[in-house]
Amino acid sequence: MNKNVTIYEVGPRDGLQNEAKIIAPTDKAEFIRLLLAANIEALEVTSFVRADKIPQMGDAATLMEQLRPELNKSRLIALVPNLKGLELAIQKGIKEIALFTATSNTFNQKNINATVDESLERLKPVAAKAMSEGVKIRGYLSTVFGCPYEGDSSLEVLKRVANRLLDFGCYQISLGDTIGVADPYQVRKLLGELKNHFDLDQLALHFHDTYGRALANVTVGLEEGIRTFDASAGGLGGCPYAQGATGNVATEDLVSMLEKMGHPTGIDMQKLKAAVAFIFSKLGKSPQSKTFYLK
Amino acid sequence: MNKNVTIYEVGPRDGLQNEAKIIAPTDKAEFIRLLLAANIEALEVTSFVRADKIPQMGDAATLMEQLRPELNKSRLIALVPNLKGLELAIQKGIKEIALFTATSNTFNQKNINATVDESLERLKPVAAKAMSEGVKIRGYLSTVFGCPYEGDSSLEVLKRVANRLLDFGCYQISLGDTIGVADPYQVRKLLGELKNHFDLDQLALHFHDTYGRALANVTVGLEEGIRTFDASAGGLGGCPYAQGATGNVATEDLVSMLEKMGHPTGIDMQKLKAAVAFIFSKLGKSPQSKTFYLK
Repeated sequence: MNKNVTIYEVGPRDGLQNEAKIIAPTDKAEFIRLLLAANIEALEVTSFVRADKIPQMGDAATLMEQLRPELNKSRLIALVPNLKGLELAIQKGIKEIALFTATSNTFNQKNINATVDESLERLKPVAAKAMSEGVKIRGYLSTVFGCPYEGDSSLEVLKRVANRLLDFGCYQISLGDTIGVADPYQVRKLLGELKNHFDLDQLALHFHDTYGRALANVTVGLEEGIRTFDASAGGLGGCPYAQGATGNVATEDLVSMLEKMGHPTGIDMQKLKAAVAFIFSKLGKSPQSKTFYLK
Repeated sequence: MNKNVTIYEVGPRDGLQNEAKIIAPTDKAEFIRLLLAANIEALEVTSFVRADKIPQMGDAATLMEQLRPELNKSRLIALVPNLKGLELAIQKGIKEIALFTATSNTFNQKNINATVDESLERLKPVAAKAMSEGVKIRGYLSTVFGCPYEGDSSLEVLKRVANRLLDFGCYQISLGDTIGVADPYQVRKLLGELKNHFDLDQLALHFHDTYGRALANVTVGLEEGIRTFDASAGGLGGCPYAQGATGNVATEDLVSMLEKMGHPTGIDMQKLKAAVAFIFSKLGKSPQSKTFYLK
């Protein structure tokens, strides 16, 4: 089995979207350039959402203008919630988008005011338009390992929704542990089931490190054959108003572990740390990782 | 296989020994009482070493005087380096000791000025005396997963030294990742080999969380059948003078993961957090765990 691992960096989007402080687009662009310099291969840079809903991402169009030189030579991905977002993204030169829904109706209702099925109906024309324009699509599934309102998620719902997203044209579904409650036995069991229904390269794992278990969950993912993991530089993100609530697994901790385990990532650790140092200096806080502080 | 896990708490010893600030024995005693109130079952409380060598542990005799009421009803363990330390420990009512050596000659030379074999010769009469006095013995083996001077450790040396410690009467050997460099594949491979030579209950795992991999390594240990893990409340410890150098895996993060995985620990999380809050207030710093900050 292939040992190479792809890290799908979500710091500029999932990370900064969940930080209280709003970062200027010039600083975001510099952060993104530093990440690219560290050989980050897949980089989710922004979200084309309404600025009044998510002010942290209100600069998507401006940011993409500034990243025009990088757009042709790098894999820059944007989250889009609807057709309007897709059109804007395409206009700005985006060639890959991410679409999102969840396995939990309650979570989806609170997040995007739609049931799971309603959200799929909304995403269907977005995906069709993207496919017709030659834009690649990745799907996010939230609350796969637990929902703050509904608890455990149903395997049947998960399989059904993932299949719909694949039918829409998604090349991969990122299974999200939105609130960071997954445990390694749960991940092992779920992937054991999903392997019977999906190709391994159709699945990615997206762990938040709320309880410090993200690398344990990644380990099980690796052993089960998953080769794409989402991460955010410095552990950016988390709930902006709750102490201790953390973001995605920190890219540098993930890279450090993968390299030690013999899974090449192609990422330059010193340059990655430079990107982390830059964005955290702009946020005025300290990175949430261990590896950042080590030689 | 038994699902119950024993957490061997090393915060008052391995933790506080590696904090720059020296804690008063009355505060240590209170910390230990709070840990016992949280149902910590095995608790390493101090080390009978020379105060000029390790000033943080210079109060061992005084501390044990203060813990006299707890000694008869709780499993309080003391590290001892030599016969003199053992005699003092016994005099103070200790009924279980820990002995230590390493798999690396260079590390041992720098740490205790003895090769591995020389250290075993020193420990032999200590163990014999403890056994004759009815004192239980646990063995620590440092640098099992990597030595800062010699790199990887030899399986043959590990097996030989572990067997000597068992011959001395140790009921269990705690395999230490002293510098926190272990990775889950390495743990899986090593335990796979050791299972052919040792009973699983003769082995414990002692992970430092330097790179954030401790829970990943614990996960593999659990899957391989290990049921005793060392931890320190709040992640106490680490190198006192290096930023980012961390202590043992935090007890509360370990407990949180174990309970989620269906491994009962018997520990009361709220009371454990109270113990963590108390000792970190005395240290004037913030706990190194995730779970401490969560509800």
